[in-house]
Amino acid sequence: MGTTQLESVPEPKYWHLKTVLSEALDSEFSVGEILPNERDLAARFGVARATLRQALEQLELEGRLQRRRGVGTTVAPPRVGVAVGSEQHTWPGAAGDAWQATDCTVAAPPASVAGILETAHGEQVHTVRRSRVTHGQQVAAELLYVPASSVPDLSAIDAPSGAARARAVLRELQRLDLENQDRAVELGSARADDAKELDRLPGAPVLVVTTRFFAEGRTAAVSVATYRADTCRLTFGDSGGVEIHHDPERRAS
Amino acid sequence: MGTTQLESVPEPKYWHLKTVLSEALDSEFSVGEILPNERDLAARFGVARATLRQALEQLELEGRLQRRRGVGTTVAPPRVGVAVGSEQHTWPGAAGDAWQATDCTVAAPPASVAGILETAHGEQVHTVRRSRVTHGQQVAAELLYVPASSVPDLSAIDAPSGAARARAVLRELQRLDLENQDRAVELGSARADDAKELDRLPGAPVLVVTTRFFAEGRTAAVSVATYRADTCRLTFGDSGGVEIHHDPERRAS
Repeated sequence: MGTTQLESVPEPKYWHLKTVLSEALDSEFSVGEILPNERDLAARFGVARATLRQALEQLELEGRLQRRRGVGTTVAPPRVGVAVGSEQHTWPGAAGDAWQATDCTVAAPPASVAGILETAHGEQVHTVRRSRVTHGQQVAAELLYVPASSVPDLSAIDAPSGAARARAVLRELQRLDLENQDRAVELGSARADDAKELDRLPGAPVLVVTTRFFAEGRTAAVSVATYRADTCRLTFGDSGGVEIHHDPERRAS
Repeated sequence: MGTTQLESVPEPKYWHLKTVLSEALDSEFSVGEILPNERDLAARFGVARATLRQALEQLELEGRLQRRRGVGTTVAPPRVGVAVGSEQHTWPGAAGDAWQATDCTVAAPPASVAGILETAHGEQVHTVRRSRVTHGQQVAAELLYVPASSVPDLSAIDAPSGAARARAVLRELQRLDLENQDRAVELGSARADDAKELDRLPGAPVLVVTTRFFAEGRTAAVSVATYRADTCRLTFGDSGGVEIHHDPERRAS
């Protein structure tokens, strides 16, 4: 990539540098390739290290670059479209569900979830842990909170915890008539346990999807799913996976 | 808030500090209040400035804190639920639409949008700029791309640009029979123009919602909407605004 004169540009320097870098990524680098180190890059574009770092951070937010532990900064593959919403209202664990149940414990949910479930303060609920794998990579981790009142016939004799218990809870949940569900998506930071599962550093930006399942006139279960924000694009709508390779950089050009 | 001994904790220091800070925000600070400066906070909790800064960044990602230009770091109000998806498929500009058209130009869309619209490279399309205000605050900025072929009867004689032109384009779009629409949500960074409108710094994390509108067997329009990630929680589903005050910190407790 050639050097570029960045002096006479009205927009912030790092912003213009980001555009220039992005074009270089398109034309000169391939997916997975490791970028030259910061000192070399800064020298090449005639900018301060701080400016370069700002531009790299932008490109990371936009999913163009990945910082990987022990590897360095690499060119990211296009984000993967992960279908989140569908018009078919189904319970977690129904046929075709993309999630894999891995564990189940009984614990008091966080206050925000208890508020939605309208459980008493400190009341314990079944907490099913699930993970979602796409193209061989774990893209999301989920905690599904199910109050005992939603699964009244659940046997206490079976496995008290673990994947088998999780499946038993999901099976009991299916007995309820699902009336409705709604979702909220927001920015969050990865908790230490989720981060480890998702191969991210604790605190990495994630997309948090909270789903509320309604049955028998009340909230019967709440799912809090944490998606990798660097590699995932969440898709909603009938047609399932939206084949949009959204690239904010190209959008700006 | 008292000081806390952070020495003997197995999780990363900044992570534990974040939890402690978050509790202090709940118990001792009110919304809008300005936090003490970094030096005082670091001294109070007996941590290095770098550790403190990491914890503050986490809390900002989670929407607990806001960094405001010329003000400092303040305690953020709960995120506002903004309804994005609904089961009613309607064109932009239909009755009840939360968006306000502000401008319209004719320009070549970014390559990613041109790809979805299947327009020729460099082919110009109507580009309607809209903004969305909730509770007196602008929460999102949108560019809606409409190829000339989707609005064949649009008169060229009326206003060539501006809000009136935008409304004319939307009016013509309504003539098409909307067959379907789908959406993708992903993390992005605010472009300079959007950042200014949204009162954010360029490059601030945003939630980018790309909506594809299908009519007559093809993509008739594409909307790229940029939502403030710090103040917004995007809601999907029948019941419109999901009243979930999601708080990742409490979730972890």
